[in-house]
Amino acid sequence: MADNRPIGIFDSGLGGLTVIRQLSKVLPKEDLIYLGDTARVPYGTRSRDTILKFSFEDAQFLLEKNVKLIIVACNTVSSVAALDLKRKIKIPIFDVIGPTLRYVNKKFGKKNVGVIGTNATIASGAYDVGLGIACPLIVPFIEEGEINSKALRLVVRKYLNNFKNSNIKALILGCTHYPIIEKMIQEEIGNRVKLINPEKLVSLEVKRYLVEHKLLTSRARSGKRTYFVTDLTDRFKNVAEIFLGYSISRNLKKVIID
Amino acid sequence: MADNRPIGIFDSGLGGLTVIRQLSKVLPKEDLIYLGDTARVPYGTRSRDTILKFSFEDAQFLLEKNVKLIIVACNTVSSVAALDLKRKIKIPIFDVIGPTLRYVNKKFGKKNVGVIGTNATIASGAYDVGLGIACPLIVPFIEEGEINSKALRLVVRKYLNNFKNSNIKALILGCTHYPIIEKMIQEEIGNRVKLINPEKLVSLEVKRYLVEHKLLTSRARSGKRTYFVTDLTDRFKNVAEIFLGYSISRNLKKVIID
Repeated sequence: MADNRPIGIFDSGLGGLTVIRQLSKVLPKEDLIYLGDTARVPYGTRSRDTILKFSFEDAQFLLEKNVKLIIVACNTVSSVAALDLKRKIKIPIFDVIGPTLRYVNKKFGKKNVGVIGTNATIASGAYDVGLGIACPLIVPFIEEGEINSKALRLVVRKYLNNFKNSNIKALILGCTHYPIIEKMIQEEIGNRVKLINPEKLVSLEVKRYLVEHKLLTSRARSGKRTYFVTDLTDRFKNVAEIFLGYSISRNLKKVIID
Repeated sequence: MADNRPIGIFDSGLGGLTVIRQLSKVLPKEDLIYLGDTARVPYGTRSRDTILKFSFEDAQFLLEKNVKLIIVACNTVSSVAALDLKRKIKIPIFDVIGPTLRYVNKKFGKKNVGVIGTNATIASGAYDVGLGIACPLIVPFIEEGEINSKALRLVVRKYLNNFKNSNIKALILGCTHYPIIEKMIQEEIGNRVKLINPEKLVSLEVKRYLVEHKLLTSRARSGKRTYFVTDLTDRFKNVAEIFLGYSISRNLKKVIID
């Protein structure tokens, strides 16, 4: 048994490309279809109703591409809309939060874990751990490619200062952008705190699921990756390269969703 | 002769509230209807096609409210879409760029003037002056209410450093958010450079137009102000207060546009 349909991944913008990076390592033969809703990014500052509406439109787009499962590659959507999506959509939906919580609860105990993310992710309380801090200014720096600036370091330091008296042992990078500045975050939080990458954990969970249900692709070649965005600028192409380490211009298409 | 219909103002988000502030001073008796497209903010990083589509939808909403004229209270839309809007929409359209260029050309000569704005505003070349620098990271700080942080000052300093060898005599604040941190910008650029506020200049131009065409309201009372947004969060209410200096919660409504 096998299932040669692609895996669908969506995000509000670029951040979910870090999920593509992990999936490509863990499941190199699977075809991947990515949707980035770059015309309406960011979701993290928007209300619950708006995030629900946008998420269903994104999932619908992937369903029409005949994917075998959907990964919500966005912490904001995972925290606000994943339950609704799982209830109403007929194919399996994976989000970045479930696998992460199972892992940290077992390994560290939830009280010993912190999380950083967007306003919407933290406000949702979906990451039910010891302490959550919203860090809304990190994403704009990364989206501008300003990943080594002194100003970003000050911004990160100020946010992470909130964990100073908390004795956390692990910190969840609760936004798919954050792995891009993992080194800076590690330096500012200190080496005694272990950083947790949800996109690694969800990629491993999807692999387990496909193996258990015998739904891996039967093809021998490397998987194709196709990228759809709802708005396309040169900046997008440049920043996508920062995320993936290679150019995606050849497989990139603009689509309209609303 | 008089015209008691309201004035319509739209922006991609909160920034246009600085235009409301100026209009309220210059034309205190006029009714004002504001639309902030907060579900799709920011426009400044998006492509021309997307900005055109969003702008027409915003203008259409105000037309349905029976406004007597529309002010495009957003530099990004003014630079990218104002000409198209003026061509296709039957009532007068004012943008923030035209009045500003006429003023600085006369007073300083265009070669002696600089401008700062979003990626889209600067890339459009609509501010045809000596030197334009895109400053995309300033808006996120202001929208987070982080208007006094050290990190923001470093961000501003880095951007303004680009004017160091330019000998400009005036700097246009080419984004409606920037007046909120006018003091910091003045400190970083130095006192020899005069800062120019487009929202003051457009407010004065609208007043002149209404006087000349005898289209001022005939009512004696203070004008009503009504605010529509396409997404509504608590954060919006807080930041709106930073912009206006008073709460607008009473006159604020959420609407859906698409």
